[in-house]
Amino acid sequence: MTRGIETASEFETIERLFRPLAHPEWGRGLIDDVAVLPSRPGHDLVLTKDALVEGVHFLPDDPLDAVARKLLRVNLSDLAAKGAEPFGYLLACHWSERCGWPEREAFAAGLAADQTTFGVSLLGGDTVNTPGPASFSLTLLGWTPAGRTVARSGARPGDLVMVTGTIGDGALGLQAARGELALEAERVETLARRYRLPEPRVDFAAAVRQHARAALDVSDGLMADLAHMAEAGGVGVQLTLERLPLSRAAVAWFETRVDPQAALAQLASGGDDYEIALAVAPQSLDALKREAERLHLRLTQVGEVVETPGLHVLFFGDPVAVERTGWTHD
Amino acid sequence: MTRGIETASEFETIERLFRPLAHPEWGRGLIDDVAVLPSRPGHDLVLTKDALVEGVHFLPDDPLDAVARKLLRVNLSDLAAKGAEPFGYLLACHWSERCGWPEREAFAAGLAADQTTFGVSLLGGDTVNTPGPASFSLTLLGWTPAGRTVARSGARPGDLVMVTGTIGDGALGLQAARGELALEAERVETLARRYRLPEPRVDFAAAVRQHARAALDVSDGLMADLAHMAEAGGVGVQLTLERLPLSRAAVAWFETRVDPQAALAQLASGGDDYEIALAVAPQSLDALKREAERLHLRLTQVGEVVETPGLHVLFFGDPVAVERTGWTHD
Repeated sequence: MTRGIETASEFETIERLFRPLAHPEWGRGLIDDVAVLPSRPGHDLVLTKDALVEGVHFLPDDPLDAVARKLLRVNLSDLAAKGAEPFGYLLACHWSERCGWPEREAFAAGLAADQTTFGVSLLGGDTVNTPGPASFSLTLLGWTPAGRTVARSGARPGDLVMVTGTIGDGALGLQAARGELALEAERVETLARRYRLPEPRVDFAAAVRQHARAALDVSDGLMADLAHMAEAGGVGVQLTLERLPLSRAAVAWFETRVDPQAALAQLASGGDDYEIALAVAPQSLDALKREAERLHLRLTQVGEVVETPGLHVLFFGDPVAVERTGWTHD
Repeated sequence: MTRGIETASEFETIERLFRPLAHPEWGRGLIDDVAVLPSRPGHDLVLTKDALVEGVHFLPDDPLDAVARKLLRVNLSDLAAKGAEPFGYLLACHWSERCGWPEREAFAAGLAADQTTFGVSLLGGDTVNTPGPASFSLTLLGWTPAGRTVARSGARPGDLVMVTGTIGDGALGLQAARGELALEAERVETLARRYRLPEPRVDFAAAVRQHARAALDVSDGLMADLAHMAEAGGVGVQLTLERLPLSRAAVAWFETRVDPQAALAQLASGGDDYEIALAVAPQSLDALKREAERLHLRLTQVGEVVETPGLHVLFFGDPVAVERTGWTHD
């Protein structure tokens, strides 16, 4: 029980580092234990909460500004996939012994940068010390027009299954960050950055809300997440492996592999992509594509919704046995 | 980076233990990454977030059902002091290696018991493993009628400073739980229970909202929290030590002390009381007292609000030098 000794530090952490990040009105200057939000008639409040643990979700030597941004971004990704517009968050920091002032300042600087990028601000939270590895959790809040939050369920047979961006960079990025990837230095750097700093598709949220029947973010691995979509909707999802959208770095890795089917299955079962997977009615596809083009966002059909429940993976027409659909942290 | 191995366990943890706790409508069965709340016109949403870390805020051998209940209760205490009515929460569990099925089941059972007691339900969250000590954070949500959330600020000179319940049992309870208290076994047990399982004054929230000018919960220690109230309001708070309401167990401890002033100062600077401290206009006192009597809740005047900024502590009329106003768990 370490008590007392760090009092000034925690107080100062809030005072110096977090107060400047507070929502100007609803955060109450972070001095009041609580945040207070007026109701917004005609809108639903959407909440999500994700945690990151050192040694599990980030590497012990990852700079804390990147960790803070990743923490915010994995939650932003959840809301984007639901069609929600984020506005604020509560934060719990469980600082480890390595988190002195420079590390805490870096963490706050990372939050400040992403607050500007994504238009969110700090509503409140807690800051404590832990004798173990650092961990952080964040509760993100957003709004949707009433009743318009997009669910995991809702996909219907005949819908097209689309994904934003590219798939597999998160998993390759983890290997890259751990120095386990034998590729050109530039590729390794690109992939590691992608792992450390995902790009949540926040700008695409409105399009998801308008055009998707079902959606979720790709965080556990595309196959695992499509299996979730299938299960939630009581339908099947057929994934066509050769359609997987790959980044140039992932293509470079892919070309070093002997077994293309196994390589694609690996990319589709790695986590940390933070793209959005959507089920879209055929008649909505053109409108969705126009939105993606307007945002210069890659959008790829990777499969379709079918009657037979479960996830069905094909590679050039042949069924692929799926042993494991995804990795999850812990 | 421990990946994959515990997937089933985390999935099962949610499926078996947490799904039964989910809010029937807004929690979406915990399968959808997010919680969705309809707006409640005429009401403000009040949010608070507190974290507990093993070895810092609870003892490594504390049973996890008590830890879960304490986690919920420290947050309930925050909302009660703001006059808010709690309804739901998001939860992040960072399980340590000691958290197998029996411990997780105990944790969920503790939550289930307190959900019934306090009328709240689970909205969502995250469950992860950590190689370090266990830690938990909880974001609690409640409602107040629009604009009626009670603030830390708002106390005016001439207001009476009241506290609910008794002061000092939390700090003595910590000593009791660590086996450091030389008292009768029954007293030790009572105090340890009080430390492990605070009694948040949830029933008193409506009275606080109606009658308090300023309020906050006593978690850092009465002196520290009254200093917060003084600072937030730009006023002074005068605390009269000999008025401190003590439990019978605390009286038994007090009688073993040589220096009564130092003993009272110690009780007023220990944390974990989870009572409510309020500033009340003299004309509101009778109505507030009637509410407390109706609830069989002890309510004691321990001081008053004055013009001179800061915390002023008196013991039978003499000023007491305040070196440290409270303990905080860093």
